[in-house]
Amino acid sequence: MTAQRESLRAILEPQSVAIVGASDDFSKINGRPLKYLLEFKYGGRILPINPKYGEIAGLRCYPNLEAIDCDIDLAIVAVPAKAVSDVLESCAKRGVKSAVVFSSGFAEMGEEGKAAQERIGVLARESGLLVCGPNSLGIANLTSGMTASFSQTLERKPASGPIGFITQSGAFGTFLFGMALESGLTFKYFISSGNEADLEFADYVDYVLDDPEVRVIAGYVEGLKNGGKLKEVARKAASLGKPIVLIKVGRSSAGTRAARSHTGSMTGTDAVYSAAFEELGIVRADTEEQLLDYASAFLSSARLPQGRGVGIVTQSGGAGVLAADRAEMVGLVVPELQDETKKQLLGVVPRFGATGNPVDVTAQFIAEPALLRDSIALVDRDPQVNGIVFCLGLMDLHWSRVAAELTELSKTVTNPLYVSWTAAPSEALEALRSAGIPVFPTPTRTIDALAAATSFNMRREAASQRVFPAAGPAVLPEVVRQLIHGARAQGRDHLLEWEAKQVLAAFGVPVPRGQLVGSSAEALQTAEALGYPVVVKAQAIGLLHKSDARVIELNVANAQQLRLAHARVLARAREHGSPEAIRGILVEEMVNGGLEVITGVSYDPSFGPVLLVGLGGIFTEILRDVALHLCPLEVSEAAQLLQKLRGYQLLTGARGTTKRDLASLYEALAAVSRMAAALEGVAAEIDVNPLLVLPEGQGVKAVDALITLRSR
Amino acid sequence: MTAQRESLRAILEPQSVAIVGASDDFSKINGRPLKYLLEFKYGGRILPINPKYGEIAGLRCYPNLEAIDCDIDLAIVAVPAKAVSDVLESCAKRGVKSAVVFSSGFAEMGEEGKAAQERIGVLARESGLLVCGPNSLGIANLTSGMTASFSQTLERKPASGPIGFITQSGAFGTFLFGMALESGLTFKYFISSGNEADLEFADYVDYVLDDPEVRVIAGYVEGLKNGGKLKEVARKAASLGKPIVLIKVGRSSAGTRAARSHTGSMTGTDAVYSAAFEELGIVRADTEEQLLDYASAFLSSARLPQGRGVGIVTQSGGAGVLAADRAEMVGLVVPELQDETKKQLLGVVPRFGATGNPVDVTAQFIAEPALLRDSIALVDRDPQVNGIVFCLGLMDLHWSRVAAELTELSKTVTNPLYVSWTAAPSEALEALRSAGIPVFPTPTRTIDALAAATSFNMRREAASQRVFPAAGPAVLPEVVRQLIHGARAQGRDHLLEWEAKQVLAAFGVPVPRGQLVGSSAEALQTAEALGYPVVVKAQAIGLLHKSDARVIELNVANAQQLRLAHARVLARAREHGSPEAIRGILVEEMVNGGLEVITGVSYDPSFGPVLLVGLGGIFTEILRDVALHLCPLEVSEAAQLLQKLRGYQLLTGARGTTKRDLASLYEALAAVSRMAAALEGVAAEIDVNPLLVLPEGQGVKAVDALITLRSR
Repeated sequence: MTAQRESLRAILEPQSVAIVGASDDFSKINGRPLKYLLEFKYGGRILPINPKYGEIAGLRCYPNLEAIDCDIDLAIVAVPAKAVSDVLESCAKRGVKSAVVFSSGFAEMGEEGKAAQERIGVLARESGLLVCGPNSLGIANLTSGMTASFSQTLERKPASGPIGFITQSGAFGTFLFGMALESGLTFKYFISSGNEADLEFADYVDYVLDDPEVRVIAGYVEGLKNGGKLKEVARKAASLGKPIVLIKVGRSSAGTRAARSHTGSMTGTDAVYSAAFEELGIVRADTEEQLLDYASAFLSSARLPQGRGVGIVTQSGGAGVLAADRAEMVGLVVPELQDETKKQLLGVVPRFGATGNPVDVTAQFIAEPALLRDSIALVDRDPQVNGIVFCLGLMDLHWSRVAAELTELSKTVTNPLYVSWTAAPSEALEALRSAGIPVFPTPTRTIDALAAATSFNMRREAASQRVFPAAGPAVLPEVVRQLIHGARAQGRDHLLEWEAKQVLAAFGVPVPRGQLVGSSAEALQTAEALGYPVVVKAQAIGLLHKSDARVIELNVANAQQLRLAHARVLARAREHGSPEAIRGILVEEMVNGGLEVITGVSYDPSFGPVLLVGLGGIFTEILRDVALHLCPLEVSEAAQLLQKLRGYQLLTGARGTTKRDLASLYEALAAVSRMAAALEGVAAEIDVNPLLVLPEGQGVKAVDALITLRSR
Repeated sequence: MTAQRESLRAILEPQSVAIVGASDDFSKINGRPLKYLLEFKYGGRILPINPKYGEIAGLRCYPNLEAIDCDIDLAIVAVPAKAVSDVLESCAKRGVKSAVVFSSGFAEMGEEGKAAQERIGVLARESGLLVCGPNSLGIANLTSGMTASFSQTLERKPASGPIGFITQSGAFGTFLFGMALESGLTFKYFISSGNEADLEFADYVDYVLDDPEVRVIAGYVEGLKNGGKLKEVARKAASLGKPIVLIKVGRSSAGTRAARSHTGSMTGTDAVYSAAFEELGIVRADTEEQLLDYASAFLSSARLPQGRGVGIVTQSGGAGVLAADRAEMVGLVVPELQDETKKQLLGVVPRFGATGNPVDVTAQFIAEPALLRDSIALVDRDPQVNGIVFCLGLMDLHWSRVAAELTELSKTVTNPLYVSWTAAPSEALEALRSAGIPVFPTPTRTIDALAAATSFNMRREAASQRVFPAAGPAVLPEVVRQLIHGARAQGRDHLLEWEAKQVLAAFGVPVPRGQLVGSSAEALQTAEALGYPVVVKAQAIGLLHKSDARVIELNVANAQQLRLAHARVLARAREHGSPEAIRGILVEEMVNGGLEVITGVSYDPSFGPVLLVGLGGIFTEILRDVALHLCPLEVSEAAQLLQKLRGYQLLTGARGTTKRDLASLYEALAAVSRMAAALEGVAAEIDVNPLLVLPEGQGVKAVDALITLRSR
């Protein structure tokens, strides 16, 4: 029987913490949590357990769990891997609510460890004991001083703050924690999720999001077992307006290999994560600095930018150029200011400055505070500007006045004001941060942070409204159910093209008119009805590569050709398998003048059905020019998705090419994605290759398709 | 008459410095240099000039230049823009050797300022006075204390060091100077080149390279007037093994616009700079941190990596994954270690660690120093490893022991050892830096620095041997000379296709066999000689778009078709211009089965002839898949260049395409580049479009070509 799970409150806000295997040596892994609990003045009960001691640091030390007379919310388990299982069972028996397991030696150590880890998961789910880890560096709640962790960064006495930090790498998470402190960022939660035998990354995010003290979630991710949970919490985060900023590793083959051996987790395909994060409104950081910079931007009191236009005001022309370059590189726009704005700036900016965008106020602004004030106000009013970046540097003598000026300015501007202050006096940075102004050490990092805030804001609404159908078997149209049932009954792992096309049609994807026939006479009759030219294809079980097997004849123009084609295709099909495998000959209208698009669906172990789309031929095969999207996707999302293709212009009629029926293509992709969602758990893979996109107004046609089924 | 120019010694190592317009207010721009010269204990003579004072800060103040009785090596000019010209003339007259002009208000301020700036250049060249600026923040030599600058960073009392820093942006250069100090990097030279009326960026690099105290050049560049000088100094730098690391701005349209108004300089095409920097062995930094990190890597005592293989050893699995990801992203390779290495690592690394690459030694290495030593030694011996990255973090309690250990290790390893130490105690960083170990704050930045060192080393030899022919008219083959002379004599700005093809042929670029004919009878005769099918094209002055004008007939198969084609082409050519413009009909062999490649040459104002190559059709027109190279290029360079094309595989026979005659293509590109170099100053643009690349063994053919001439 599965016990009722407690909320994560027991593990993140425990009233009592037991330390199984506590040590009086505070330099050891099993000694440090006690040291930290005392240092951070944890207000709950601290219960060291070790039969060797009567007391540690003035606290009574118990011989075992049973000897403790009060409720135990959380047990820290710092014992050798072999002993973990017994300790957790005792915990469950004793009614302990949660446990954090420091011990390593599980999935990261091969099959035996993996099995032991799975047993922890089963125990947790069956008993209701919440388990963090194993192989966790622990968890800390810095508001309550609950530091069930041996993170070295706790040596630096961090204060509590507005960030909830969750990491799948304990040690590297600790490094990032240290780095955050150095740049003035503080965490309320530090959570090392370890090997996630029970509680997963998204579980922690879910709980921490509800904490009113937490305004931003930051984290380090190697791979998620359960993308479905992430979809849920990402939507919740978007609704609450609390950004999730993540470093996700495992982009490269070497990185994936390493991540697997590190926490024993599969990292999945990085491209799927990229697509998923973008759709879910999760902000992806590429570097360690970006993770912290983006969190810092979201914590500031600056509004989120309402669009991509950035106005750059700068003390140094050079910093302005660098900022402008970076802005275009990361997808922002540096608009030429309106004539009216420029005209007014001319009255304000020194003659050796510049009134374009960037606006170069020169060092003159130090002597003339009005120069900075007026320039920023003018740029702020320009209708194409959605965010302002001010670049300055050094200012050892005048920082205090400038910081005060910027603080005032940040209150009057309509758009967010981001400051790049290079080689700043540390007091200046503190002054701006405490005024809620986002400030960074270089123009590049400032622009990156503004771009992240812009992207987040532009995706947030869509992400908060995104609804994913529940995973699992959907009610399928009757014809589809029967086709799948029929194939299964024959022991097949795939649908024939003819069957796959019926499934496509049932979900609204256009396919060529056609008919499955037997004899040559039937073929003739069908062709007459369709009108020549036609296509003739053999349909045989297991014959998946029809072109290679030459069982397709295109552009069959008349009755005589049809008779020959029918005979040839049949003969070749027989060469490739038993006569019983042949299910008939498909006669279809010939579709000409279409541009080849490839689309298909794979089922990601974390995120479920993922639609891929690309242009045919060299685009997909040589240039790997493809785009991915979680299913289902809307028509408007299909339009955005196609624009990511480098070859997109081939669809729009650029440079003398034919303008294609984009509206029908969007509809077809949306239909494929709905089909993919409905077939989750049933289909293993769907390929529509090619989907021919006809000239504008003439629609699309899926001229070949393959659906393989999941083994049951 | 042009005077003999002094070496830059007078401006960078002056024995005496006059300050024209000196002020006793040390907070002012014209007061600060004096303050700094005193503070930095400049040993030469300091000569303030201002009729208002008898002395400043205990130094005699002169009423004017003439009143000074000793030689003046350098004059600081800090007067209003209008007065600059007079001051410089006095300097020249007085025999002052050099001047640094702080005053702004020149090319950055429109036509009038531009003209004034040009006059400064003329004065400098005619008199021999060396001029830095105008609009310069000054120059400082921190070894001699010669601080002819008002850079704010001098307030922070920087020590002298091994970096020569040259910046085209004064203020931003000063910010970078400040940022460098914060990360422990010290400059010997700080040079703000300003608007470069006289001395240019490359002039300073040239001088500074010869200074034995300088080991790395770092800088900020907006645009170079004279790429030829850069080519020279880059080769010198490569020969000396002194890396040049640059931030080059002006990548974006907004950035280019801003750079122009900032120093009035043209930034040129960023793609040309990218190609040039790569070929010249100049290391391009994309961010402010990269500029400093790369300089720091080159200053360390670590050897340069001999190849792209990186072995990652890490305290934290997570840091290792991030490093591995980044390595692949920036072009390094993270090889699987050899079985033998892995076997030996198994005996060393804890069971919960990892022995792949990354090698995860876990925090256990703190307790067991041998673990770190042995792991790094084993990775170092793996033949696929060319550089080692060790990732760790924090270590507040043990940093001193670990730093000592790494210092020992760095002496024993064969490959360079780079350290990523996140959230390090500052003493640890100092300890490693003083031991000459390259150390960075994150795995990402460590990998970036190692990649920069690798690229530099792999390009260095080629860059040191690169010879560019002197720009200017070369001796052209007689036939080429005559064709150009003929066109010029007719007042034409272009060669006809037929003429251009003769030029191509003269330089060894294969063209179709063919003949320019007049009458239909001549055409028949030529076609018989060539063999059918043939191509027929009208050759008329000004008729550049032959396809649009339909004056080309392809695949003409026999005499009858030829007669018709001849007549049609002639008639259409007449519709497009006067009969006199028609120079004849070109009859050529028809070339079938070729893959279209586009190549061409433009003449960059800074770098001279630049070859462009791309695949035809959508590749160039829609995907903009092109690669650039300075001319001339060698056959081996052509091979490398083509590999940069995304569509490169279409040439190599991938995925069922035809393998193309790559050897002939390389030869042809090299030939075009030699032609481009020879035609420098004569041609304005060269287009070979298309160059058909036939199947392997069958060569290439330039089937259309256009050469436009420079106006004289």
